[in-house]
Amino acid sequence: MKTATKYLTFELAQRRGLVRITDEVEAFCRESALEDGMILVSAMHITAAVFVNDDEPGLHQDIEEWVQRLAPGPASDDRTAGPEYRHHHSGEDNGDAHLKNLLVGHEVIVPVTKGRLDLGPWQQIFYYEFDGRRKKRLILKALGV
Amino acid sequence: MKTATKYLTFELAQRRGLVRITDEVEAFCRESALEDGMILVSAMHITAAVFVNDDEPGLHQDIEEWVQRLAPGPASDDRTAGPEYRHHHSGEDNGDAHLKNLLVGHEVIVPVTKGRLDLGPWQQIFYYEFDGRRKKRLILKALGV
Amino acid sequence: MKTATKYLTFELAQRRGLVRITDEVEAFCRESALEDGMILVSAMHITAAVFVNDDEPGLHQDIEEWVQRLAPGPASDDRTAGPEYRHHHSGEDNGDAHLKNLLVGHEVIVPVTKGRLDLGPWQQIFYYEFDGRRKKRLILKALGV
Repeated sequence: MKTATKYLTFELAQRRGLVRITDEVEAFCRESALEDGMILVSAMHITAAVFVNDDEPGLHQDIEEWVQRLAPGPASDDRTAGPEYRHHHSGEDNGDAHLKNLLVGHEVIVPVTKGRLDLGPWQQIFYYEFDGRRKKRLILKALGV
Repeated sequence: MKTATKYLTFELAQRRGLVRITDEVEAFCRESALEDGMILVSAMHITAAVFVNDDEPGLHQDIEEWVQRLAPGPASDDRTAGPEYRHHHSGEDNGDAHLKNLLVGHEVIVPVTKGRLDLGPWQQIFYYEFDGRRKKRLILKALGV
Repeated sequence: MKTATKYLTFELAQRRGLVRITDEVEAFCRESALEDGMILVSAMHITAAVFVNDDEPGLHQDIEEWVQRLAPGPASDDRTAGPEYRHHHSGEDNGDAHLKNLLVGHEVIVPVTKGRLDLGPWQQIFYYEFDGRRKKRLILKALGV
């Protein structure tokens, strides 16, 4: 049985942004020498998400508008706190980022078959930052044979 | 240690629809001879979801209305593109299906204990198609002993 | 290879409520003697959720208001059925709880490294009850070495 662990670090210049990480997860899959099993891809912060979807810029704008509609926050380049949340009474300004994390989810499990990520033709893995301008981490954990 | 992999294929006549797949996952569990571990149930498309909930027709209508409210799209039997999304500028007509995928999630992990799916009494596994009328795949991946 | 299984039971006095379960999952991690792998934390009911987020009371109120906005239901101390759902024609009164389960998700996977939960500094694990006042179960399943 094989296990392997790796940490990725992100530091985005904006409040929010998408980073495609399929290649990093594929590289980790090769490094771990996993032939068959699963890889956990999980944000280690509560103001970021990981998801699998299409690598199409128009869709990414749709997704940005959608998370803003369902969990309203300041514009990505706005340094004010934006809509009021009770969480802000604790001195934070990122209440919307916590709700976006719950909406999209902070982790995915990627199946591995014959030494490769077993993804559908349009499935790409993304890290979605909701509270950037500081260092954030993500864990990759492989388990299998 | 045991691993096993299987692919299910769906081709729904409508744009959207639910397919209960608990029996298929249970059959896969038996075929894999897994005694203890986990089974990943994951849609290989970015316009479909997998979830665990109740097998009650009224609730399924509630869920359909809910995903339409939070990620609006055309009616299930409507062949037009429906509400406008930026994604449609790329020639697609399924922007809502991508958002519904993010809302509901594309995968679940089902625990296996003593050779059986270890589900609660009302937990049923469903494939939720958001962009049917073509072949779609789902992967089952077993890992354990 | 190691596997381990444990069940937690909850019985909340109110309709909805949050229970922090990080310590219980950490204790299970020690009991299982898992050195490296993953722990599945999964509600066995379709009217409860499991999520990872911040242990901050103001945020918890924000989350409660948010799930009520996106999947409306009765107040936590209200014993009436609240907003009408088709599911209620089956004699149930918890339609909103099923939608909240879909919104937040019923499970998380927690990575384990060097015998400890490999969580970020603010990541806490919560059980989120949406239909309490009766016994509910959650499964912990460890897999790894």
